[in-house]
Amino acid sequence: MPQELLIIGAGEFADIAYEYFTVDSPYTVVGFAVERAHLAEDEKFGLPVVALEDAVARFDPATTEAHVAITSTQLNRVRQRLVGVAREHGYTLANFISPRAMVWRTATLGDNVFIFENNVVQHGVHIGDGCVLWSGNHIGHQSRIGDFSFMSSHVVVSGYCTIGPRSFLGVNATFADGVTIGADSLVGMAAVINKSFPDNGLILNGHPAEPSRVSSYRYYKLKPPA
Amino acid sequence: MPQELLIIGAGEFADIAYEYFTVDSPYTVVGFAVERAHLAEDEKFGLPVVALEDAVARFDPATTEAHVAITSTQLNRVRQRLVGVAREHGYTLANFISPRAMVWRTATLGDNVFIFENNVVQHGVHIGDGCVLWSGNHIGHQSRIGDFSFMSSHVVVSGYCTIGPRSFLGVNATFADGVTIGADSLVGMAAVINKSFPDNGLILNGHPAEPSRVSSYRYYKLKPPA
Amino acid sequence: MPQELLIIGAGEFADIAYEYFTVDSPYTVVGFAVERAHLAEDEKFGLPVVALEDAVARFDPATTEAHVAITSTQLNRVRQRLVGVAREHGYTLANFISPRAMVWRTATLGDNVFIFENNVVQHGVHIGDGCVLWSGNHIGHQSRIGDFSFMSSHVVVSGYCTIGPRSFLGVNATFADGVTIGADSLVGMAAVINKSFPDNGLILNGHPAEPSRVSSYRYYKLKPPA
Repeated sequence: MPQELLIIGAGEFADIAYEYFTVDSPYTVVGFAVERAHLAEDEKFGLPVVALEDAVARFDPATTEAHVAITSTQLNRVRQRLVGVAREHGYTLANFISPRAMVWRTATLGDNVFIFENNVVQHGVHIGDGCVLWSGNHIGHQSRIGDFSFMSSHVVVSGYCTIGPRSFLGVNATFADGVTIGADSLVGMAAVINKSFPDNGLILNGHPAEPSRVSSYRYYKLKPPA
Repeated sequence: MPQELLIIGAGEFADIAYEYFTVDSPYTVVGFAVERAHLAEDEKFGLPVVALEDAVARFDPATTEAHVAITSTQLNRVRQRLVGVAREHGYTLANFISPRAMVWRTATLGDNVFIFENNVVQHGVHIGDGCVLWSGNHIGHQSRIGDFSFMSSHVVVSGYCTIGPRSFLGVNATFADGVTIGADSLVGMAAVINKSFPDNGLILNGHPAEPSRVSSYRYYKLKPPA
Repeated sequence: MPQELLIIGAGEFADIAYEYFTVDSPYTVVGFAVERAHLAEDEKFGLPVVALEDAVARFDPATTEAHVAITSTQLNRVRQRLVGVAREHGYTLANFISPRAMVWRTATLGDNVFIFENNVVQHGVHIGDGCVLWSGNHIGHQSRIGDFSFMSSHVVVSGYCTIGPRSFLGVNATFADGVTIGADSLVGMAAVINKSFPDNGLILNGHPAEPSRVSSYRYYKLKPPA
C-alpha cells in the first residue's frame, strides 16, 4: 500500500509538493494542514485542508507521514518552526527526492528534505534537516549544507564547502572549493563567493561577493540566535 | 508507422534537428526545405532538399508534419516568418521535446517548440509558439516565455517571470523571481536581471544588468512592431 | 566477465573514481597505483595500493585497463605525465562516461576521459585525451576541448569554441559562441569570456573577463611548453 502523506502548507510550494509527491514518489497525498490563523479554504485538489492544531485527530501519525512545504519565508524560520511542530505532533517527516536528481549513495540527508529535478548531490555530501534544493543545483563532494537552508536553482557549491544553517542561496550563486559561510546567510542571485565569510547573518552580493552593511537579521527583522 | 517530418532550414540547426528528431523522437525526417533564394544543395543526409515554395507538391501536409529549424537570425523574425509560411502551406508544426528534458505535466507548450536535453520546464509554465530552449535552462513555476523566444543554455528564469516575444536570452543569463522583460529583448550572456525591464527592444547586459543606449531594433536594423 | 580496472592515483578523486566506476560502469576496480614516492598506504576499500613503478607485475596490461584519476594539480601536468607513464607500461586507458551524462553520438572522445553526471556534449564536439568534465557542464555543438583540460562544474562552452590544452575552467565560467582560448589557460570561477583570448598561459577572470598580468606559468611555477 502506498505510504500516506500530509502536506503542511497550502501555498504555491504546497501545490508543487502535491504534484511532485503524487507523480514522482511512492507517497499518496491525503490532505493539507496549515496553522488555524492561516486557514482560508477547506479543500484543495479534492483533499481536505485542516488546521495544523487538529491534524493529528484527522491524520494519524502512526499511519501518515508529513512534509512541511514552506519556502524561505522569514529566512527559513517558518519552515524550521513547523517542522518542530510536526515532530511534536509525532509525525515522521518525509523526504522528496526527485528521480531526476542524482544523490550519490555516500551522501547523507536529514528529514523533511525536498530535492527537485536535476540536482546533483555528490560523494560524501551532507544535507541537513528541512533543506530545499530547488532545481539543478550542484553540491560538490564532501560539502555540508546546514539545516533548513534553501537553495534556489543552478547554484554551484563546489567541493568541501560549509553552508551555515537557514541560509538562502539565490539562483546561480557560485561557491569556490572549500569556502564556509555562516548561519542565516542571504546570498544574492549570481553572487560569486570566492572566499569564506564565516560570520552569521551576512548578506552577500556581487561578482566577487561582498557583504552588505545591513545584516540578514535586520533585513528580515529577525532576532539573531542566542 | 512513424510520423513523417519535413525540416524547414538547412543550416547547422537543421543538421542538429535532423539528429535529434531521428535519434530521440518518434518522427522520421523525410526531407528539408529552404526558400528558393537560399537553395544551395539538393541532398542532405541522403534526403531531398527542396524549395519551400514547392514543398507541398513533394511533401503532403496531410501526411507530413513540419518543423522550422532556424536559430535566432534577425532576432527570431526569420523563424517567426517561416512558421507563418509553413502554416499557410497547411503544415502541422511538430515539437521536439528531448526525453532528457523535464516538462512538467501542468506546463503548456505552443507549436514548433524545440526543447533540448536537460531543460526544466516547471509547474504551470507556458512556452509560446516557435520557442527554442537550447540546453540546460530552468524555467521556474508559473513563468511565461513569449512566442518565438530563443533561450541559449543554462539560463535561469525563476518563478513568475514574463519574457516578451522574440527575445534572445544569452547563455547563463539569470532572472530573479517575478520579473518581466519586454518584447524583442536581447539579454547578454551571464546578464543578471534583478528587476523588471518591461520596455520593448532593450539590450540588457551586466551584473546587475542595465539597458544599453542602443535598442535591439537598431542593433539588428529591424522595424519595431507597430 | 566485467573488465578489470586499475586506478592510478589515491587521493579524493581516486576515491570518487572508485565509486563511479564501481556503481555506474561495467568496470570492476581491482587496485590502485601511485608513484612510489607518494605511496602512503597499501590498501584502500579492501584493494591493494601498489607502486606505479611495479604495477605491471601485479596488474597485467593485457587483462587490466587503467584510468589516471588525478585532478588539475600543476595545471593538469601531473595527470598528463601519468597518462604517459601508463601508456609506456602498456595500459589501455579507460574512459568513464556517466550514464547520467549526454554525449551525442556524433561527438568524439580521446582516452582517459572522465565525464561526470549531467554533462552535455553536443553534436560534433571533440573532447581530447585526459579531459575531466566534472558535473553539469555544457559543451556546445562543434566545440573542441584540448587534451588534459579540466572543466569544473556548470561551465558553459557555447558552440564552435576552442579550448586550448591543459586549461582549467572554473565553476560556472561562460564562453560566448565561437571563442578560442589558448593552451594552459586558467579561467576563474564565473568568468565571462565574451571574446577570444588565443594567447597561451592567460589567467582570465571577471565579468567580462580580462587577463591578469601574471601568467598561469608564473602562477603555477611551470615552464611554458617549448
